[in-house]
Amino acid sequence: MPHIALPSGLPGIRGPMAFRPETAKPINELANILLFEPHSLSRGERELIATHVSCANECEFCQTVHGAYAAHFLGDEALVLKAKVDPESADLSPKLKALLNIAGKVARSGRDVTADDIARARAEGATDLEIHDTVLIAAVFCLCNRYVDGLATWTPDDPEFYRQRAALVATHGYAAVTVAGAMPART
Amino acid sequence: MPHIALPSGLPGIRGPMAFRPETAKPINELANILLFEPHSLSRGERELIATHVSCANECEFCQTVHGAYAAHFLGDEALVLKAKVDPESADLSPKLKALLNIAGKVARSGRDVTADDIARARAEGATDLEIHDTVLIAAVFCLCNRYVDGLATWTPDDPEFYRQRAALVATHGYAAVTVAGAMPART
Repeated sequence: MPHIALPSGLPGIRGPMAFRPETAKPINELANILLFEPHSLSRGERELIATHVSCANECEFCQTVHGAYAAHFLGDEALVLKAKVDPESADLSPKLKALLNIAGKVARSGRDVTADDIARARAEGATDLEIHDTVLIAAVFCLCNRYVDGLATWTPDDPEFYRQRAALVATHGYAAVTVAGAMPART
Repeated sequence: MPHIALPSGLPGIRGPMAFRPETAKPINELANILLFEPHSLSRGERELIATHVSCANECEFCQTVHGAYAAHFLGDEALVLKAKVDPESADLSPKLKALLNIAGKVARSGRDVTADDIARARAEGATDLEIHDTVLIAAVFCLCNRYVDGLATWTPDDPEFYRQRAALVATHGYAAVTVAGAMPART
């Protein structure tokens, strides 16, 4: 049961977002820019960064829903399950592995990111914007994971729920889907 | 030296915000709603939550700049220095202590917040909105701390720098000051 009286039937971050729409708006805008808009990193790669960080933070809702988005775009659920816990041994590009290494460190502390971590990413072809956005995606999910778990929000058990959500967000983006409420709810 | 090529002369979060103004906009909007707009928690109380979390995350820039804002509003630098490391023994209201206890747990993990922590805050008079905003302020600073440190941004040493910044933000809010760039820069 959530720690505060949230609108019922809304899973994960959607409960507190409906409770406080003023703050939901900029959070969704941020997610949309980082994860939905055109980028040199694919949507699957960016969702994998979000999933890896959410897994490191042990946030069940975020790692499952963003894992479903990543699997939707990458077309491989098994790859996502492997990459979120052990990216170095997963079948990913050397550049994405280097970026996931940075993201995993940001999940612990920004202070853990070293010049060597950055040099590795750059040697694998990462641009400054890709490094910046990796750090910021990781930081944003440190926010979202804590927002979801700090209020003890509802985490659905059914994997199908997350697959359906993935298909919606893939098409419409975060802001549109959350605002429109075009989601299966707990009825 | 920052990990990526940031615009020079901008301290802390302002470097990456100038590098990527698209994402800076929603981050500043979020900070403005949570810390600047009218609220049942005073601006000093909300800045103290931000400072306590930034101190827990060992982010020198954020704990110093938001500590300066808190001191500006509370009129007591010594109180802020004490409250950011040991709020329970500081001269604060029982409600604010209970909210800082929640914020400190969110800094570690949202999963650390217990029903007892919430019950304590409620017994001291905290509303659902105050509990929600405490969790979200703490989560937002887990973002900001990692954004600032994950890119190894510039942290000025001079305390006067932070006091001047506090006076500007106190009057104009976050979004206005950051967009206008009305700040002492490293020249």
